[in-house]
Amino acid sequence: MEPVYLDHNASTPVDPEVLEAMRPYLAEHYGNPSSTHAYGKALRAAIERARGQVAQLIGSEPEEIVFTSGGTESNNLAIRGSVAARPQRRHLLTSVIEHPATLRPCALLQGRGYAVEHAAVDARGQVVAGEMAGLLRADTALVSLMHANGETGTVQPVQEVAVAARARGVLVHSDAAQSLGKIEVQVDQLGVDLLSIAGHKMYAPVGVGALYVRGGTAIEPLLAGAGHERGLRPGTENTAGIVGLGAACVIAGRVLAAESARQRDLRDLLWRRLASRVPGLALNGHAEQRLPNTLSVRFPAVSGNALLALCDGLAASTGSACHAACETPSAVITAMGIADRDALGTVRLSLGRASRRDAIEQAADQLAAAWNRLAGRG
Amino acid sequence: MEPVYLDHNASTPVDPEVLEAMRPYLAEHYGNPSSTHAYGKALRAAIERARGQVAQLIGSEPEEIVFTSGGTESNNLAIRGSVAARPQRRHLLTSVIEHPATLRPCALLQGRGYAVEHAAVDARGQVVAGEMAGLLRADTALVSLMHANGETGTVQPVQEVAVAARARGVLVHSDAAQSLGKIEVQVDQLGVDLLSIAGHKMYAPVGVGALYVRGGTAIEPLLAGAGHERGLRPGTENTAGIVGLGAACVIAGRVLAAESARQRDLRDLLWRRLASRVPGLALNGHAEQRLPNTLSVRFPAVSGNALLALCDGLAASTGSACHAACETPSAVITAMGIADRDALGTVRLSLGRASRRDAIEQAADQLAAAWNRLAGRG
Repeated sequence: MEPVYLDHNASTPVDPEVLEAMRPYLAEHYGNPSSTHAYGKALRAAIERARGQVAQLIGSEPEEIVFTSGGTESNNLAIRGSVAARPQRRHLLTSVIEHPATLRPCALLQGRGYAVEHAAVDARGQVVAGEMAGLLRADTALVSLMHANGETGTVQPVQEVAVAARARGVLVHSDAAQSLGKIEVQVDQLGVDLLSIAGHKMYAPVGVGALYVRGGTAIEPLLAGAGHERGLRPGTENTAGIVGLGAACVIAGRVLAAESARQRDLRDLLWRRLASRVPGLALNGHAEQRLPNTLSVRFPAVSGNALLALCDGLAASTGSACHAACETPSAVITAMGIADRDALGTVRLSLGRASRRDAIEQAADQLAAAWNRLAGRG
Repeated sequence: MEPVYLDHNASTPVDPEVLEAMRPYLAEHYGNPSSTHAYGKALRAAIERARGQVAQLIGSEPEEIVFTSGGTESNNLAIRGSVAARPQRRHLLTSVIEHPATLRPCALLQGRGYAVEHAAVDARGQVVAGEMAGLLRADTALVSLMHANGETGTVQPVQEVAVAARARGVLVHSDAAQSLGKIEVQVDQLGVDLLSIAGHKMYAPVGVGALYVRGGTAIEPLLAGAGHERGLRPGTENTAGIVGLGAACVIAGRVLAAESARQRDLRDLLWRRLASRVPGLALNGHAEQRLPNTLSVRFPAVSGNALLALCDGLAASTGSACHAACETPSAVITAMGIADRDALGTVRLSLGRASRRDAIEQAADQLAAAWNRLAGRG
């Protein structure tokens, strides 16, 4: 059997077109973008072109884009940088289902005396906008709510929370690492001040990301050094990676509608085929308000890890890949009110541009057969 | 005329062999190194192999290497992370000729109540070990002294300072961004606890670096997130970049002796040819204790920027490329006691593996002709 990669929410392959765009900046174009000679200027121009491409995809101005080393750094910069710039406000609001790259910076600030609250989610893994808005305080500095959760795919009510937050002068950050390129992401429609982008979740390479910072938003840099990226991110720019991220944004804008529909159809086929073979199979997350590529399911009476161990050649995950070595059930799944024992039966299948119907059918059959073996029916 | 790149201290091209090593990790090998399936395991193995390659070059254990996004992050992590881990010590010692990626983290800590002192340099741009050691205090947390300065190439007495520092329980950090791959760098011989590495200064790509952290050294992470790199550096690992850095270290180990000798000869030819055509040309930095690829010279009575503007196709710099847009003379040059007016005549020529004799001669003749025009003799 051909290997089947259904772990695109952990990391995507680099799009061949992205690699092609990067190639000159890994080979014939070298130097330092800060240099004033022709070598440097060629890199500078490439970086600014990429900045425009990222801005175009999310409906921002180019100068509102800061390039970083990835999603984790973008979240750290957004959260710690914006809070540092408004020290009179000592309260932070986030949700229980955020990525560690959001939860840990918040915990760090908590250790420094900030009050941090985590909005709960409902049984479908969705924050209730009104409830979250009810946690806003006069001294709230920032609300950080992810656009879509990578484990369940559930899309969060960022727009509604943002309206309430901004009415109270509270900054709004959203981690769009999982949503950008899969669903529409427009910063003005979402009403966010800060938005995190991770290259390797959207067919650009790992090691590059971006942070959208709405014009006029005060923010302090995280790293100290020479004044690159308008003083917000020192360190010689990763031109090849930045060019790759720009190219990935162009491609995402072009294929988003068609790929969303295609992957949604395949994903729903995967769900139907699995559900018909596995009695008691349950869906994690929101049935409709969900990333079109993501299917998180709970297999009854088995461990997801044990199940995947029987599925040679199938790449999927049981939690988020970033902390998959850990044997405790995913906090994102249990936050929906699912018991630990049931949560451990979770398998996340995340599709991508290379996913094809025959591979999806093969994966469904392989998983169902493995479940039958494990559950003692085979 | 063929373009001549003599700005390797700003950034090196990626070695074709490095790019070849990276290529599979930009294309067929994708996924997330934290994933437990075959895709993830292949990346994890590649990262650990690279860790061994970096360790091998500097004489450390593999587990003492932490991968970062580059030299700036490595310096921030080393300085801020180690100081945070020993909060009872409130004094920092560094030098006046450090890169902004060292000076700015120190300034940031100064703003938080730390006492920071900067050792001076002599007329050859070298810290005097005894003087620097004399600035050590009972509450000194860290000494940060670069291994070699990128502007003058002058090698610093890290070993001597380290002996004095470690005798007093003071941690020693050295930024080896400019020295690694050009001269011998051995962590035990230098006696350092922390050593910064930047990929793009040693024929690996930009966007990847490493920090050597001597076993047992307490250090806090800079970024908060999922627990990659033994909890010291969250964020999905840049496998392709890390593999590139590993390959670059292997190559550096192999070619260092021969390339050092070859580049030193060419550099000295460049100096002799320039000096014979430009009366009053002066050398910046130490005549002997200097990176073999680096020649920083002061042209009399002209501006280095104006000079380079007349040299079509020649890529060199007048200060450090990281802050070349700034018109004030380089602080590294004036720190040697050179007047601002004279310092502005500085041009740094930094050779690399692709530098050939005819190009060096061409560059010398071009610079001399431009100087003659500017100085009113041509």
